[in-house]
Formats: sequence, structure tokens, C-alpha cells
Amino acid sequence: MVSDRTVTQIHGAALKRSLAGADLKIQRWTSLVPGERSKTLATARALYDAWIQAGADRGSVVLAFGGGVIGDVAGFAASTFLRGLSVVHVPTTVISQVDSAVGGKTGVNFEHAKNLIGTFHSPRLVIMDPDLFSTLSERDFRAGWVEAVKMGITLRRDLFERLERDTERVLVREPALMEDLVATCVQAKSEIVGRDERDEEVRAILNYGHTIGHAVEGAFRGRLRHGEAVAVGMNAAAWLGEELGVSIGDVRERQNRCLGALGLKLALPGADKGVIARNLKLDKKVRDKKIRVVLTLQIGSASVWPHISSRLLRTAVRVVTS
Amino acid sequence: MVSDRTVTQIHGAALKRSLAGADLKIQRWTSLVPGERSKTLATARALYDAWIQAGADRGSVVLAFGGGVIGDVAGFAASTFLRGLSVVHVPTTVISQVDSAVGGKTGVNFEHAKNLIGTFHSPRLVIMDPDLFSTLSERDFRAGWVEAVKMGITLRRDLFERLERDTERVLVREPALMEDLVATCVQAKSEIVGRDERDEEVRAILNYGHTIGHAVEGAFRGRLRHGEAVAVGMNAAAWLGEELGVSIGDVRERQNRCLGALGLKLALPGADKGVIARNLKLDKKVRDKKIRVVLTLQIGSASVWPHISSRLLRTAVRVVTS
Repeated sequence: MVSDRTVTQIHGAALKRSLAGADLKIQRWTSLVPGERSKTLATARALYDAWIQAGADRGSVVLAFGGGVIGDVAGFAASTFLRGLSVVHVPTTVISQVDSAVGGKTGVNFEHAKNLIGTFHSPRLVIMDPDLFSTLSERDFRAGWVEAVKMGITLRRDLFERLERDTERVLVREPALMEDLVATCVQAKSEIVGRDERDEEVRAILNYGHTIGHAVEGAFRGRLRHGEAVAVGMNAAAWLGEELGVSIGDVRERQNRCLGALGLKLALPGADKGVIARNLKLDKKVRDKKIRVVLTLQIGSASVWPHISSRLLRTAVRVVTS
Repeated sequence: MVSDRTVTQIHGAALKRSLAGADLKIQRWTSLVPGERSKTLATARALYDAWIQAGADRGSVVLAFGGGVIGDVAGFAASTFLRGLSVVHVPTTVISQVDSAVGGKTGVNFEHAKNLIGTFHSPRLVIMDPDLFSTLSERDFRAGWVEAVKMGITLRRDLFERLERDTERVLVREPALMEDLVATCVQAKSEIVGRDERDEEVRAILNYGHTIGHAVEGAFRGRLRHGEAVAVGMNAAAWLGEELGVSIGDVRERQNRCLGALGLKLALPGADKGVIARNLKLDKKVRDKKIRVVLTLQIGSASVWPHISSRLLRTAVRVVTS
């Protein structure tokens, strides 16, 4: 069992009762420091140590109970321990339920580059319960929906239009709506991952907003939620789409209005442009020194643009940091 | 390019010429300290750093040029960098050509347990040239053939009988024989790996001699060649086969005579039995606290015995350390 201190404190007792009721034995419960700073190789080493002490073997199962950070780092450690233990995800946050718990990507950060070290390791099972959202902070809750907006913008016009229309019902955490939106996102994500698990073709579309988003997130070293950074990256990507004449109609305007209604900032005046530019060079999506960026053609349809010039990208960074 | 200082010194210039002739550009050449002590997470981190500095991206290829240690650690780092770079193995030793370069297992040691951290990551290409054996030390050359004897004992009677009959021709490194034996081993290994890549069933047979072998190797902390430890482990496994009445005929006697003719020690008087016993508990093959051991029924045929008692295993350790 891998969780963080906050999740353990709020939901630990209930999960322990539930597992005991099912006669499942917890060999070891590890509670990490909450937040991005736990997503390191040092944490993976600490998990290896804990699992050795607990006598884990190839038949042991790692249960990742928490948000995206817990899923990523526990998934990475599990995928590399004894050449791969089975993983069950119980995602507790909006972002991990609508996005990261599906698809098998694991990762830790390395020298400020997000997910530079990682594997593909599909979970055996993912258990989603949107009731868990009730204990999330307003900030985490709002930032989590950015990935859902992204899926709507790039893949599912109907999903985007629901988020656009029902923003207020989302913000009051209406239970039936939560369940429905999570199911729609999981379905959209699964369909893409099923076609391209290893992120070589169509899955790349899910990186919309993430090229500049990751660079921004790295520059802020844990002071931004992932969704907050991606919202800024999506604004930059939409700007690029307009600038290059790729986007049709009011994509940027509607996207940004929806993100704004969810309470997200679209720009970060005063951010360190130099650090962001350096982080961009370490991006996994960089190939042969040309930067690939996902651009939206119209709402619900996006495509990978392989040859964005560094100059234009720097201008996009300027747009969202001024 | 990942190699070690010895291999780089002896064969580096030739390989550089060869790659330049094929118009292949080396972004970065990393030469590690030779030997098992380079098989660590710290080395993987150093490779990540080198690859970041060299500007590696998802299209980069890692060429592992060396013996089993280089293949294991370079393969591990490649499999976890940007969620997996392509790997080409150019194995330079007997053991890596007859065994480790085929099958996609990667690994680093962790707290004296061999390969505790690792992945499955198949190479795109393996280039074998037995001419490289000519520069191996006598000790490395002899120890390398242990894995070939193991494949003969457990899977291919004809292979074992050739090694038994042609030991002297092996020891003078007769070129045509080297090529032929390497090809036979690669074929035997590929066939097993093709049936069970993730080591869940039949591939486990290749662990013959490795349960106690790994524990012994860990106890000697780099002072034994892998093959030397496995030879001792094979002696212990053959003793268990006899003790349990599983082996038919003169398996142990013929196996040990062949290993002895190759110059391998079959026992290590004075080894630390306590450390070996502790290492056994960390073995990847341990499941639900029962130790699984591969036993030979007759030459060319082996099977996994799932429930060997700790007491009997300790006796086997005593047999090979007295």
C-alpha cells in the first residue's frame, strides 16, 4: 500500500476496514510526503527498501492510493521491483480519476524535468469512487478538471460542451454529474490508449498543452498544481494554433473562458522565461531538436504539429508569462 | 554508447571506425568502471545525466557494448529513460553472447541482492562476434561457459554432450566451434524466451543453479564471476536433485566433471553461510516464503520444484561451502 499522509489521514481507516473485510492482508503501508516533491528516484528507493523489509515477492500487489503523484511514483517503483509487481490504482483526486490512473504511464522527475524517468506498466485494476472528491481542497478540485477540458477540446466536442455548460454544477460537486463526467473521460482516454499504448502516434494528442505546461510546472518547482500549469500551456497552444492559422473559429476564446470559469489562471506574469526555455529542451516530445506541439483544429479535433520553430515557441512562452 | 573502460580500450577504436563507416553518429560514449560494482542505480543516474547532456531524445538508440554488466545496466537505464529508448546489444563476452544478451532482462543490484531492480526490455538488435573472445582473460572466458553447460543440462542434451566431449577445443578457443556453440545457445535461449518472455512459466528453468548461485555471488560482493557462482549453485542444485530422488542417473557427476574440466570450482569452503542465507530470502524466485528451485530430472530435462524447505536449502548451502 502506497499513499500520502493526507490521504492516509482522511481515508486510511475506511480503506483498512474495507480490505480487512475482504480478507486482504496489507504487508506494508507507506505514507509519502504529499505533493510533487515525492516524485523522485529517492522515493522509489525508499519504496524498494520498505518492500524488501516487508518480504514482498513477485506475487505481491502494489496498491496506489492517492492522486497522480502516488500513482506515478508507486507505479514506477512497482514496475522496476523484481522486474515488475502488479499494480492496483485507487485514485483519490479529480485529475487521477479523469486522466492519470488510466493508461499505464509511470514516472518520476529528474533534475526538474517532469517524468523524465519512467515506464509503461498497465495496472491490473483501477477502482474509481468520485465520492472521494468531497474532501479535496477547492484548488485541487478545480485544477483537476483541466485534463477533462483538454480531452474535450482535443477529442470530444460533447464533453467540452458539457463542461462549458455545466461549470457551476461541476463546482458544487454534484455527485451524479461527477460520476458521469469521470466515466466519459475514462472512456475517451481508454479508447486512445487502446489504440496506441506506447504513445507513438495518436496518444500524443493527449499531450495538448503539456509541452509548455510541463516546462512551466518545472520552473515553479512544486508551487503549481499540474492542472494549473497545463491550463497555461493550453492557452499557449491555443495561441500557437491561432497564430499559425491552424485553428478554426473561436477555439482559444471558448477554451479560455471555460478554464477561467473553473477558476484557472491563463497566464503567469513574471515567471522565469529562461528556466522555462531550458526545460523545453528536455521535453520527451522533442525529437531531432524540433519541437512537436499538439494544436487544435476545431473543438473536439487536434493534431500533432512536428516542426514548430524555437522562435515561435519562445513567443508563445512570452504570451503566457506577460 | 555505453561500454566499460577495458572494452573501450581494447575494441573502442575499431567500433568507432565501423560506426563512422556506416555514417552512424555517436552522441555520447560512456565508459563505466568494469565489473559488477557498476550495476547500481547510481550508474543508471549517471547515464541519465550523460544522455540529458548529449541531448538524447526518444529517437536516440542506446548501444550496449560489453559483457553482461554493461547489457544489464545500460538496458535498465534505457528502459526507464523517457519511458524507454531502443537498445542494441553488442555483447563482447562468452556469458553475454551465450546467455544474457538474448531475452530482454535488465537489472541493477540493490543492497547486495542481484538484479532486485529491473525491467523486461527487448533489444531491437543483437550483434554477436565470437572473435571478440580472443581478448578475454582465461578466468572470464572459462566462467562464461557455465551458462552454456546449464542450458545443456536443463534443455539440450546434445549441447551438454558436445561441451563434455569438446572441452579442450573450447579451451583453445577454436573459432568455428565458438561460433557454432554461440549459435546453439542463442537458439535454445530464444526458443524459451519466445514461449515465456516475462519469466512466469517455462523460462524459470533457466534459473537452474541461480537460486543459491545469486546468494553466493552477493555474499562475495564482486569477488566472484557470475559463472563461478552459478557453477557452485549448480552443484548445490544437483545435490538437491539427488537428495530428493528427483535426478535419474549420474547427472551430478557428469555436470560437475564438465564444470571441473572447464576449470570451475564446485565448492567455496569458508564462505559466509549466514550472509548467503539472508540473501536467499531476497531472491526474486521466492514466492509466499517457499523457495522454488529448478531441479534436473535427467541431462537435458529440468523442472521447477516449488516447495523446497528452508532446512534442506541450508543443508545444500553447507554442502557447497564446506
